[in-house]
Amino acid sequence: MRTPAERRAEPADPLTVVHTRWAEEGMAGGPWPFLAMCSLSRLHQILARALEDRLKSLELSRTGYFVLTTLALMNGGRALLSTLGRLMMIHPTTVKLTVDQLERAGLVTRQRHPHDRRATVVRITELGAERARAANAALENADEGPLGGLAGRHEELFDALRDLRLATGDTEF
Amino acid sequence: MRTPAERRAEPADPLTVVHTRWAEEGMAGGPWPFLAMCSLSRLHQILARALEDRLKSLELSRTGYFVLTTLALMNGGRALLSTLGRLMMIHPTTVKLTVDQLERAGLVTRQRHPHDRRATVVRITELGAERARAANAALENADEGPLGGLAGRHEELFDALRDLRLATGDTEF
Repeated sequence: MRTPAERRAEPADPLTVVHTRWAEEGMAGGPWPFLAMCSLSRLHQILARALEDRLKSLELSRTGYFVLTTLALMNGGRALLSTLGRLMMIHPTTVKLTVDQLERAGLVTRQRHPHDRRATVVRITELGAERARAANAALENADEGPLGGLAGRHEELFDALRDLRLATGDTEF
Repeated sequence: MRTPAERRAEPADPLTVVHTRWAEEGMAGGPWPFLAMCSLSRLHQILARALEDRLKSLELSRTGYFVLTTLALMNGGRALLSTLGRLMMIHPTTVKLTVDQLERAGLVTRQRHPHDRRATVVRITELGAERARAANAALENADEGPLGGLAGRHEELFDALRDLRLATGDTEF
C-alpha cells in the first residue's frame, strides 16, 4: 500500500485521475473496487490484443494458442473436447470452432471416442506441437510493444495474481 | 518467487499441473509466459462473470457500470461519447450501444455538442448517479462468490497489477 505522496511521485498512470476524483466528486465508499476492476480489465485487454496480434504471423488465434499449448501438455497430446472447454473456462461452442480451425490447419486431429460415441477426442499433431513451441517462444522472446514490456516478468505476473485468483475460487480443473 | 517445495505446500491451484507437465513433456522455453497469460485470463473471466451476475439485480451491464462510474467522476457528470470510448478502451460501437441502454433506463441523457454537431455529449442523471453509488457499494460489500473472495483486497489487486500494467504501456487516457 502506497502513501498519497508516493503515488503522486510515480510515473503517469491513467487511473490516477480516478483515485483523485473519487473524493472530489463525493462518491460513496472507496475507489478501490472500481479501480481494481478497471485495472484488471485494462491489463487483460492490452495483453489479449497484443497476443492476438503477435499470434497472427503464426496463424493462430489466442484461443487456438491456449488449446494447442494445453494439448501439448497432455499425456499423449490428447484430450476430450469437453475437457478442453472445462480446463480453459471456454464456452463449448468456442472450443468447437477453435478446434475446427486448428484441424483445417493440420495442427490437431479429431476422432470419435472408442467407448463413447458422443465424445470427441482431440489430438495434437507434430505440426501442432511445433506451432505451440513457436508460439511460446515468441511470447517469451517478445522485445517490443506490450508483450515486450512484460518480457522477463511473466513469473512476477503469475505470482502477483495467484493468491487473489485462488481467493476468487479458481479451483475447478 | 517461490521455491518448488513452497509451491507444493500451497492450496490446490488448477494451474500447478501446467507447471509440472511443462518439463515432463519436454516443452521448449519456460512455462511462465503461458502461465501468466492463463492466470490473467482466468482471473479476468471469473471476475467479469461475477460482476455481470451481481450487476443484473441493478439492471446494469459490466460496460454500463464502467460508463456510469466514469461519468460520475467527470466534472459536471458529462463527457463526449468519443472520450468515453477512449478512456475505457472500449470499441465506439460498444460504447454507443451501452449509452443507448443507459439512456432508455433514464440513467444518462445525450445531447449534441453545442459547437460540434458531429459530437455527442453524454451526461449522467441523478438516477444514474444513485445507480453508480449502489453498484460500487454492492462491489465493496460483496460477501459471497468470487466478489466476496476479493472483498477487502481491491487495493491489493490494483497495486499488484500496477507496475506490470504501466510496463505494458497503459498510459493513454
